[in-house]
Amino acid sequence: MLTILRLSHRRVRDARLTTHVCLTARALGADEVILSGERDENVLESVSDVAKRWGGKFKIRYEEKSRKIIEKFKGIKIHLTMYGMPVQDKISEIKEKSKGKDVLIIVGGEKVPGEVYQLADYNIAVTGQPHSEVAALAVFLHEFFEGKELTKKFGGAKLTVISQERGKKVI
Amino acid sequence: MLTILRLSHRRVRDARLTTHVCLTARALGADEVILSGERDENVLESVSDVAKRWGGKFKIRYEEKSRKIIEKFKGIKIHLTMYGMPVQDKISEIKEKSKGKDVLIIVGGEKVPGEVYQLADYNIAVTGQPHSEVAALAVFLHEFFEGKELTKKFGGAKLTVISQERGKKVI
Repeated sequence: MLTILRLSHRRVRDARLTTHVCLTARALGADEVILSGERDENVLESVSDVAKRWGGKFKIRYEEKSRKIIEKFKGIKIHLTMYGMPVQDKISEIKEKSKGKDVLIIVGGEKVPGEVYQLADYNIAVTGQPHSEVAALAVFLHEFFEGKELTKKFGGAKLTVISQERGKKVI
Repeated sequence: MLTILRLSHRRVRDARLTTHVCLTARALGADEVILSGERDENVLESVSDVAKRWGGKFKIRYEEKSRKIIEKFKGIKIHLTMYGMPVQDKISEIKEKSKGKDVLIIVGGEKVPGEVYQLADYNIAVTGQPHSEVAALAVFLHEFFEGKELTKKFGGAKLTVISQERGKKVI
């Protein structure tokens, strides 16, 4: 089980970015997202709606207290942050330690409480440059799943894209 | 030279996502972003400001007419779209053909004109699932640069992160 925890969501300002975090999590192989910060029915519904139409078993839910989730989580806890250790130096160790265990990936919002750095087993950076939690999550999952996530099947889909050189085809 | 073209930007709705596209482009090895759609001084300034403080030679500029840019571009043109061919099947060919040439990566907004699919040399999908142009760009650049982008140096930086197991350190 691979869970993403999205910290400190703000309804107005973060709606689209959080949606992108959630859909990226789903598309690139995560099993669920836990949303914390402000409760946002729109994000919960729109992500659930995509998951229903496009298949697979991905779930999203809201939990008010992110600290409790991190503390109680049994498994390997990885916090994505530009201040952490380079993903390319740590990914082998993380994959090794994660074998047979649940994994929690913590994705920050605008300001991450200092305690998150302490509670995580790994603080991991996808470059030390400022960019995007969506991009960091994507590269991390791509490394973690070794590219196999790109061919993941989503069972029970109502919509499926047929890959084409040009144009759009959805069945 | 690797250029990202961000299509159809909308000032209010897309400001943060477009900023994430631009910063991801910079952090993961692109040389410049061309913004099209609505002109947005805030995005142009905030991205230039990051580039100035964090170093490197990354540029951002605005061009009204995206079609002209794509038509006139001399080099390999890649359009990222969930309807395209799987990145894992095409990346070797793209890298081979891009040797010694400029590369344009076209990143769509909400609705991409049909002509973009025709003007591109490659329509490339990072999964056929709906997710995020930021994530698609990140995975594409990571594949294109083979992970070497993660250790790119940004010369003349006023700010640099020192990687740490815990906490934050910036010099």
